[in-house]
Amino acid sequence: MSRFLSPEALRCAPYTPGEQPRDQRYIKLNTNESPFPPSPKVLEAVSRTEVEKLYLYSDPTCAALNTAIAKRYGLGVENVISGNGSDEILAFAFRAFCGEGTGVAFADITYGFYEAQVALFGVEALRLPLDGDFSLRVEDYMDFPGTVVIANPNAPTGMAVPVSHIRRLLESNPNRVVVVDEAYVDFGAESCVPLVREYGNLLVTQTMSKSRSLAGGRIGFALGDSELIEDLNRVKYSLNPYSVNRLSLLAGAAAIEDEEYFQASCQTVRENRVWTTGALEERGFTVLPSSANFVFARSARISGGELYRRLKENGILVRWFDKDRIRDFVRITIGSKEQMEALVESIRRLTAGR
Amino acid sequence: MSRFLSPEALRCAPYTPGEQPRDQRYIKLNTNESPFPPSPKVLEAVSRTEVEKLYLYSDPTCAALNTAIAKRYGLGVENVISGNGSDEILAFAFRAFCGEGTGVAFADITYGFYEAQVALFGVEALRLPLDGDFSLRVEDYMDFPGTVVIANPNAPTGMAVPVSHIRRLLESNPNRVVVVDEAYVDFGAESCVPLVREYGNLLVTQTMSKSRSLAGGRIGFALGDSELIEDLNRVKYSLNPYSVNRLSLLAGAAAIEDEEYFQASCQTVRENRVWTTGALEERGFTVLPSSANFVFARSARISGGELYRRLKENGILVRWFDKDRIRDFVRITIGSKEQMEALVESIRRLTAGR
Repeated sequence: MSRFLSPEALRCAPYTPGEQPRDQRYIKLNTNESPFPPSPKVLEAVSRTEVEKLYLYSDPTCAALNTAIAKRYGLGVENVISGNGSDEILAFAFRAFCGEGTGVAFADITYGFYEAQVALFGVEALRLPLDGDFSLRVEDYMDFPGTVVIANPNAPTGMAVPVSHIRRLLESNPNRVVVVDEAYVDFGAESCVPLVREYGNLLVTQTMSKSRSLAGGRIGFALGDSELIEDLNRVKYSLNPYSVNRLSLLAGAAAIEDEEYFQASCQTVRENRVWTTGALEERGFTVLPSSANFVFARSARISGGELYRRLKENGILVRWFDKDRIRDFVRITIGSKEQMEALVESIRRLTAGR
Repeated sequence: MSRFLSPEALRCAPYTPGEQPRDQRYIKLNTNESPFPPSPKVLEAVSRTEVEKLYLYSDPTCAALNTAIAKRYGLGVENVISGNGSDEILAFAFRAFCGEGTGVAFADITYGFYEAQVALFGVEALRLPLDGDFSLRVEDYMDFPGTVVIANPNAPTGMAVPVSHIRRLLESNPNRVVVVDEAYVDFGAESCVPLVREYGNLLVTQTMSKSRSLAGGRIGFALGDSELIEDLNRVKYSLNPYSVNRLSLLAGAAAIEDEEYFQASCQTVRENRVWTTGALEERGFTVLPSSANFVFARSARISGGELYRRLKENGILVRWFDKDRIRDFVRITIGSKEQMEALVESIRRLTAGR
């Protein structure tokens, strides 16, 4: 830290991304990437001809990408904004809808990036505890007057909230924005996107990093009432007008148009999740009911921290959060069948005789 | 605007990017892109194999790219941060080094994005008038206690400040950060990068959008003392940890390593600038002395606004700012020789008989 750091930046609570090792080949089950390459249509779209055009700016309005997204979800292009990953979109939303007089509420156990936004923008935050079984008690949010952010399914638990609960929340106070972060929704939770036309106070954020196999392309988007989208664009054009690069605009549109590939990828992940959950439970693990491309699991025989470290020694990266209530768990990304078999075999060896 | 917009976001003054038309083929001289495709090494680096790897996250530390940049500029990797365009880097710098108790000073005529940062982060700003000939009077900044931002060469004038002036500014108050925005430096201005090792209060920002032909790749970087870089990373990991995508990391490193291609591109632009300046002066234009890949020019025979509109009707886009002091000018990107010949011919016809 330099002596020049502003008080506002000093207050920042930077997010810690999962390890991205460069030195060794791990089985990487720690950052919820897809185990599959992007759609063949993405490979076609990011052609040599397009790479040659990198000397030209990208379209700051992301028109072609937003049109493809709007079409996929049955919305108008005015209901869509794209950004450099859904993290950027979430940052836009925190700045647009939280601030002086409007705080934010989210779960005590949820995506850690929300805390980074609270600190960055100096927003008052209410952290509402998940229930003992890690389910979200939507009634706790009913009387909160500020913006509500719900990850659905939640991270790192993987547990989903029924859309009927979110509908109640939207209706209980139309003068409050509800942001539903659906980064993992395609793996089995019910999406709130069909509610976008009904509720002017609903913003749904999604990402192409997981179900669309484009983590390295950095493409996120939000769907909502055109006025909410206009607000997000106001922040976007203040912060980084050209935030999505040319090749990602193309990759994103190609990925969203390949419905068949997308459905098949999600289906395989769901099947591998069922298999992995079963295999872990057989070995005495408690696995939270996941609707995401990861499972959150604990064993009475080995602590979360030790399991994380021992798996790493064995060449498998999972994510462990050294945090109250979830210290006993590890979060395991659902990869390919071979990866999950290797994980389970490794766990079998590590826990044998304990 | 929705009724949910926060007071902080309402205060935003979004930046207006230059037109990026999609409907017609213009000679595009309005956003200071390079007229040349990226280096052949970039085409090699962004291979099909790499596109297939987009399912994996990019390296949030940008290690390989930062190493390439550090090597090119004779600095350590701890002196480098990369971002999603230099706009993002500038946003990091405004948040890191301006805020409560620390305002910012910049020229009244300069890159419009600084105003967007001031509004976004609620920073107090002092706008110091350029001299009558649009040169920057460095002495006006000497007593300002906050952060100073200088575009060198300046936009949209193209005029450079000698490094000796910036050195005086750095020395006059070591307790103040001086940000030198060198987006256009490669086209003829003197760079402050050699001062980075000398002054702990100097931050130099650069972009690959202009001289490296990668506007559509969105890659910017800053060079400075390791403590300043640490501060910027603090903001980055709060705002968007994975902000540079996989393909841009590769493209940027390849571009920075192709010194020969870079030098040749810059040289051609400089030659075309000399030619264009001469041709415009022959037609009675006043052209400010430019060290950038654009010229800022006015004619007594046609107003800036009219020239912009008439050129657009003729299929040539230039940039016009409807703003005091510079309303008479247009900013013309230096493109290929053919593009500049077409521009000059078009201007000849438009101004004939006036």
